[in-house]
Amino acid sequence: MRFKTGDKRLRILDSAVKVFAHEGFFKAKVFQIASEAGVAPGTVYLYFKNKEDLLISIFEVRMQDIISSFRAAIMEKQDGRSRLECLVRMHLQGFQRQPDLAACFQVELRQSSRFMRESVKGELQQYLDLIREIVEHGRRDGSFRNQLPVRLVTNFIFGTLDEVVSTWVMSAMKYNLVSLTGPLMDLFTNGIGRGVGALAADGPVGGTN
Amino acid sequence: MRFKTGDKRLRILDSAVKVFAHEGFFKAKVFQIASEAGVAPGTVYLYFKNKEDLLISIFEVRMQDIISSFRAAIMEKQDGRSRLECLVRMHLQGFQRQPDLAACFQVELRQSSRFMRESVKGELQQYLDLIREIVEHGRRDGSFRNQLPVRLVTNFIFGTLDEVVSTWVMSAMKYNLVSLTGPLMDLFTNGIGRGVGALAADGPVGGTN
Repeated sequence: MRFKTGDKRLRILDSAVKVFAHEGFFKAKVFQIASEAGVAPGTVYLYFKNKEDLLISIFEVRMQDIISSFRAAIMEKQDGRSRLECLVRMHLQGFQRQPDLAACFQVELRQSSRFMRESVKGELQQYLDLIREIVEHGRRDGSFRNQLPVRLVTNFIFGTLDEVVSTWVMSAMKYNLVSLTGPLMDLFTNGIGRGVGALAADGPVGGTN
Repeated sequence: MRFKTGDKRLRILDSAVKVFAHEGFFKAKVFQIASEAGVAPGTVYLYFKNKEDLLISIFEVRMQDIISSFRAAIMEKQDGRSRLECLVRMHLQGFQRQPDLAACFQVELRQSSRFMRESVKGELQQYLDLIREIVEHGRRDGSFRNQLPVRLVTNFIFGTLDEVVSTWVMSAMKYNLVSLTGPLMDLFTNGIGRGVGALAADGPVGGTN
C-alpha cells in the first residue's frame, strides 16, 4: 500500500538508498536503481537529473522527515537534558534501524563533490539548529552551563554522534548502536575528567538507560 | 633548498595539496599539479598511478609526519590531561598553519571512494591509537575516569576535533582555530552539565590557554 503511483519519486529514492549502500555510489548504475524500483530507466530521469542528484535528494528528503519527527518527539520532553537524550537516542536508533541509510549518509554522501563543497546542506544546518535549540533550552532551565560558545557545543555533540555512527558503519555494524545512548549522555554531560559530577556518574555505564 | 632532486615526489605532493585545495579534487588536472611542481606531466605518473593515488598519498605522507611529531611532543608531557591538551592544540594549530592541507583533509579526501570505503586508513587508525593511548595514560595517572568504553571516548575526542576543523574550513577559515583549545579541553574534561567539576571551570572561557 505504501507505493502508490503518486510516490514513484519516493520509491525510486528508497531503491537508490539500497543500491548505493550495496554497490557504492560510484559503481551504482541508474538502471539498477530503476530495476529495484520497478520502473523504466528513463522514468528515473523524469524525477532526477543524474545519479548525484539522486544521492543529494535522498539526503534532503530523509533529513526533512528526520528533523520533523525528531522535533516532535523532543518537544514532548521538558528539560534540556531529556531533550538531548531523546535526540541522541533517536539519532542512533534511526541509523540502527536503517543500515542502508546509514551507509548512504556516512560513506556514500561524503563522496559527492556537490554535497561536500556547495551549499546544498540546508537540511544539515537545520539539524545543527535543532541541536543548538536543545542546548539553549537546557541552558535556560539549568541543565547545561552557559559559558561555552554554543557553536562549539553543537560541534561537540554532532561531531561525536557522527563519528560514533561512522565507526559503527565501518565496523560492519556489529554492535548495538543504541546501547551507546547512556555512555554518550554521560560523556556529553560530565566529560572524561574526574570532577564531582563525573564521579557521581561513575556507576554502571549507561545507568541512565 | 628544500626541493632537491631526491624529493621530487614530495614536491609533487605539495603541489597537489595546493591544486586540490583551490580547484577541488574532481576539477583538478594532473597537468596543473605537474606545472605547479615544475615537472613534466609524465613525471607525475612515474610516482603516482592517478589523481586519486595522489590524494591518498598526501594523506599517508602527511599523516606519518603528523603522527611522529605529535607523538614526540606529547611524550614530553607528563599527565594525561596535559597530553590531551597538547594533542588538541597541535591538531588545531596544524590545520590553521596549513589551510590548503585543511581543505584537502576535511573536504577533498572524503570524496575519494577508495579512502571512504577501503582499508587505506592505516594512518587514521594510528592517529586514533595515539588518542586512545593518551586516554589510557590519563586513566592510569588519575586525569580521567575509567568507566567509559575507551573506543567511545576516542570517537568523542576525534569526532569533535574533526567537526570543529570542518566547520572552520566551511566557514572560510574566518576565525582563530587555535583559540578553541581551552574551550575544547573544558568540554572534554567537564562536559556541558552543571556538575561541580563543570562549575569550577565556569571561569573565563579558554582560561587554560
